[in-house]
Amino acid sequence: MNLALFGAGRIGKIHANNVAVLANVNLKYIIDVDHASAETLAKRYQAKSVDTTTALHDHSINGVIIASPTNTHANLIVQAALANKAIFCEKPIDLSIERVKECLQIIQQQDALCVIGFNRRFDPQFTQLKQAINQGKVGQIQQICITSRDPSPPPIEYITHSGGIFRDMMIHDLDMARWLLDEEPCEVYANASCIIDPALGDQGDVDSAMVILKTPSGKLCQISNSRATTYGYDQRIEVLGNRGMLQANNNTATNLCFSGDTGVIHEKPLHFFLERYADAYRLELAHFVHALQEKNISSTPNAYDGLQALKLANAALISLKKNVAVKL
Amino acid sequence: MNLALFGAGRIGKIHANNVAVLANVNLKYIIDVDHASAETLAKRYQAKSVDTTTALHDHSINGVIIASPTNTHANLIVQAALANKAIFCEKPIDLSIERVKECLQIIQQQDALCVIGFNRRFDPQFTQLKQAINQGKVGQIQQICITSRDPSPPPIEYITHSGGIFRDMMIHDLDMARWLLDEEPCEVYANASCIIDPALGDQGDVDSAMVILKTPSGKLCQISNSRATTYGYDQRIEVLGNRGMLQANNNTATNLCFSGDTGVIHEKPLHFFLERYADAYRLELAHFVHALQEKNISSTPNAYDGLQALKLANAALISLKKNVAVKL
Amino acid sequence: MNLALFGAGRIGKIHANNVAVLANVNLKYIIDVDHASAETLAKRYQAKSVDTTTALHDHSINGVIIASPTNTHANLIVQAALANKAIFCEKPIDLSIERVKECLQIIQQQDALCVIGFNRRFDPQFTQLKQAINQGKVGQIQQICITSRDPSPPPIEYITHSGGIFRDMMIHDLDMARWLLDEEPCEVYANASCIIDPALGDQGDVDSAMVILKTPSGKLCQISNSRATTYGYDQRIEVLGNRGMLQANNNTATNLCFSGDTGVIHEKPLHFFLERYADAYRLELAHFVHALQEKNISSTPNAYDGLQALKLANAALISLKKNVAVKL
Amino acid sequence: MNLALFGAGRIGKIHANNVAVLANVNLKYIIDVDHASAETLAKRYQAKSVDTTTALHDHSINGVIIASPTNTHANLIVQAALANKAIFCEKPIDLSIERVKECLQIIQQQDALCVIGFNRRFDPQFTQLKQAINQGKVGQIQQICITSRDPSPPPIEYITHSGGIFRDMMIHDLDMARWLLDEEPCEVYANASCIIDPALGDQGDVDSAMVILKTPSGKLCQISNSRATTYGYDQRIEVLGNRGMLQANNNTATNLCFSGDTGVIHEKPLHFFLERYADAYRLELAHFVHALQEKNISSTPNAYDGLQALKLANAALISLKKNVAVKL
Repeated sequence: MNLALFGAGRIGKIHANNVAVLANVNLKYIIDVDHASAETLAKRYQAKSVDTTTALHDHSINGVIIASPTNTHANLIVQAALANKAIFCEKPIDLSIERVKECLQIIQQQDALCVIGFNRRFDPQFTQLKQAINQGKVGQIQQICITSRDPSPPPIEYITHSGGIFRDMMIHDLDMARWLLDEEPCEVYANASCIIDPALGDQGDVDSAMVILKTPSGKLCQISNSRATTYGYDQRIEVLGNRGMLQANNNTATNLCFSGDTGVIHEKPLHFFLERYADAYRLELAHFVHALQEKNISSTPNAYDGLQALKLANAALISLKKNVAVKL
Repeated sequence: MNLALFGAGRIGKIHANNVAVLANVNLKYIIDVDHASAETLAKRYQAKSVDTTTALHDHSINGVIIASPTNTHANLIVQAALANKAIFCEKPIDLSIERVKECLQIIQQQDALCVIGFNRRFDPQFTQLKQAINQGKVGQIQQICITSRDPSPPPIEYITHSGGIFRDMMIHDLDMARWLLDEEPCEVYANASCIIDPALGDQGDVDSAMVILKTPSGKLCQISNSRATTYGYDQRIEVLGNRGMLQANNNTATNLCFSGDTGVIHEKPLHFFLERYADAYRLELAHFVHALQEKNISSTPNAYDGLQALKLANAALISLKKNVAVKL
Repeated sequence: MNLALFGAGRIGKIHANNVAVLANVNLKYIIDVDHASAETLAKRYQAKSVDTTTALHDHSINGVIIASPTNTHANLIVQAALANKAIFCEKPIDLSIERVKECLQIIQQQDALCVIGFNRRFDPQFTQLKQAINQGKVGQIQQICITSRDPSPPPIEYITHSGGIFRDMMIHDLDMARWLLDEEPCEVYANASCIIDPALGDQGDVDSAMVILKTPSGKLCQISNSRATTYGYDQRIEVLGNRGMLQANNNTATNLCFSGDTGVIHEKPLHFFLERYADAYRLELAHFVHALQEKNISSTPNAYDGLQALKLANAALISLKKNVAVKL
Repeated sequence: MNLALFGAGRIGKIHANNVAVLANVNLKYIIDVDHASAETLAKRYQAKSVDTTTALHDHSINGVIIASPTNTHANLIVQAALANKAIFCEKPIDLSIERVKECLQIIQQQDALCVIGFNRRFDPQFTQLKQAINQGKVGQIQQICITSRDPSPPPIEYITHSGGIFRDMMIHDLDMARWLLDEEPCEVYANASCIIDPALGDQGDVDSAMVILKTPSGKLCQISNSRATTYGYDQRIEVLGNRGMLQANNNTATNLCFSGDTGVIHEKPLHFFLERYADAYRLELAHFVHALQEKNISSTPNAYDGLQALKLANAALISLKKNVAVKL
């Protein structure tokens, strides 16, 4: 199986490395407008740096990995789908719901496999949490509390095209909420502030946000987002049901503990997403390749999941502006 | 110092017992419409069962403890204040904000000491949390997350006059929020469901609730309430600031831990408020008596705190009905 | 019931205070060669400072609490037993096994109640551990690991008459071992060093010690003692059986936890025995008074337990000197 | 670089798999008296199943991995050293100290690199523990407590040639003790029982063991071994120094935690050494290959470490029989 990778940046490099360890998979092409980056990465993995057309017209290419900037995702998805390639695309598909719907239509029309990079669904903590829920461990879900805080804000430049905290950061948590609730939320309320970094506010963004979701059956979910902590990447999920509560706590590099005159000190959570979700990135690629091998086009998280998470993120933005709950 | 206790029920008994161990304080009278209960309790503590008039007209009585049903609180506060007695009153003062304001006016006019039984402010976990915040441990507060879940729903009868989950249960969390945020919330949003016990819904109440508060400076606070858990009384608070995060976790009877074939098992949280807040009940009474001895009428939590917490609870109710954030 | 307290020092004060809160018990006399201390303490509890003879000849005195220096214990036990008083005596009874046996003989001959202050048996952590063992939670005990470390060494002066680490400190752990193993150890091996405070070595004592005990049925027990830690009083017990492992961990003042740039920091263990065993001191006195009321002279821990723990401590000392295991 | 693997059993398979992922390293030969196993494994990794002579006479072979039964280790080490191959050998080198010394002599005479598979030195928990000690985190080491318990006893057949618990199991802990103490123990005392599986006792082995080590400077170390637990593989180390205590706790598959009516349940430790030390096995092979590339023949743990650990294990056996401490 041959794959082409669009984007040779930070996340592209992770995917290239994860493809390299998969058996029977060959990373053939790397495409990036920054040719130097593409060639450096290509060299490391015995791939070729080519242009988009070459990659998509090569019949030996079975699938593409889209890890280029967000504003290129939709076009690449459409082109790849029309070229009958399987698609793995980083979230979000696009910031415009209309554009996402267009992509979705073409994906469906072409019967294309399209997996969206909601990597957290592949984190071992969260997959075991989901599995335990499915096995009835907590019984009927009543409440979910998602804590998701970054160690430090992204560069201001990133904010200018990311779509802001709800669409670049909370979209992951919204996807987790949909996945774990196993029911589409029908109401979203968001409140937020810019109290960490005024430069984020200057871009019209916020850096501290809280959201409440509700589903038709009455399940409630709250999400807490922050652009900065002093203690690392805070990624916890708590699920309350009528049989008990399950908590997925933060991961640490080791279980070492020091007792001294300032207290009993455990390690901080892993620093950021590259560390915490290293396994998840590896496993989502393996999942994509497996779905491709099995021709399982209904494999999730798919473009529809991308659309739904974006709808929730946009609804949160509207809720924040109007200070009312938004019905979906 | 002589005190009179109104109410010989569950909470009255706790207060009687806590007064008994205070030095230089005498529980002289117990008043309850259920004379048998009053006499039984009076006997145990060498007190007398009398009527309200006798208690309030006795010049040797320095203060009253109001632990009778909610709908009697306001009248007793007014009478006690007019009789120049110091007042310790269980929350809430009344379900009507107007009536609470009337009480507050009379209390102020009489220069009466009036401490409201927001017992959690005296819980050693939370007092040390507050102290650490005051010492700058977390820096500027950005987010507070309060988890407050009961082990099982109250009797339906209780719901009919309690004012519902926001006014009988979350009012404690709203007070904690005000106290810890150290700033009055200016926006409240609430969402809720009845998914635990339909009988609660029949009374117009909900059993699972989530609330988001916001303060003028942009601090956010979320509260999660549930009327039932399988694992005991869940009372946790998490405070995120620009210097770090502080968490007050649940208390357990011991630190025993069992490792066996089903896992590594720690004890459940203490069962309910009587166990978890035993120290808090004792300390709030000591605080009241100390304030009385020191003639410190500005001692908190006072009737104004009672009013503000009620306003937040009522705003949450309105928010739930209209599905919009309510400004205060 | 009237009690007389011998010793108005640190531990005497604790007992005086714990007697004061017991119902139907009156602390009538306090005896100390330091009359000023005795009078100060007596005043606080409405007792009288008298001499030994007065106390023991007073027929209204039901029991005595011996909290005077170790070298006075045996004489006081004998006198009290002959005067038909119930006895509560701090450990050790004496440093000489012969002398302890003499005491034991007189206690038995007089049918005297004699409770020895092995306070840890009354610590709620350890009583629940013992209860769980008795209920079969761990099944057949195979191994016990006792960690017992003080925050800082005692004054050198104390060491000169305390009998050294095995008889003043580890004797508590040896008693716990006997109690939890529920079988008399038949072999003791000890090794030790003076690596914390050379001044202790100058007195012929050691400050770091490890012991292995074995019982006839093959259960093994290891004890780790240290005269100093930087993190407080380290009092943990681990019991391994064929059904699982039970651990009694350290207690802390609260369950607060701070996450910051230096880690996730929990509270240190309670500082020292006064804090950690405050409940245990209270409960052992209540146990003694209850045994006295019930005339239960077989109540444990008794003088025989004191003798056996001392034998183990002495065997450890011999083992240390000869570097062989000592059979009992 | 070309390697030959001796032994196609459980541990051989792990090494084969770990060699496969190393860059620039080729597993050329697999040698096992069970030819079928050798061929199956060889096939999976594109290696050849050959005999010992072929492997050792092939000049392209740079190093050998000895994962065959213990009684073949010494001969293979000697032959490999004489054939100028670098050696990675599973512990123990041999059960006879004389034979180990002969091996050591030939290794030194040939200037051979010989790494012994004390895998735990490469476990990330323990390497970070060691690093922290080296950085002075605990200050001067005073006590080390090693807990090392298997989930279930090995097959009886294994016991007949393994040398028993001290030489097949505790030898790992003795190596950890030497490594962490950073000083050769000079006294060993062991006590033990057969209280888990009488069949082990029938073979002259024990299943529960405790050991105390002492170093010339007075550091103490205790080890607790058990052949069975109900809760998985128990691998903990605690180091007490004059600045504080460091604990390396057990690893679990996830940090999920369930709160229900039976308690607050965390995951059990990873089941056994294959799970717990998966990283360590991978890292020790990488360490060997790296040392080989760097021609670093002083790389540890080496044959001398193998000898010293065996001496301690044998001393423990003698101590157990004589019930005295054995000086080294």
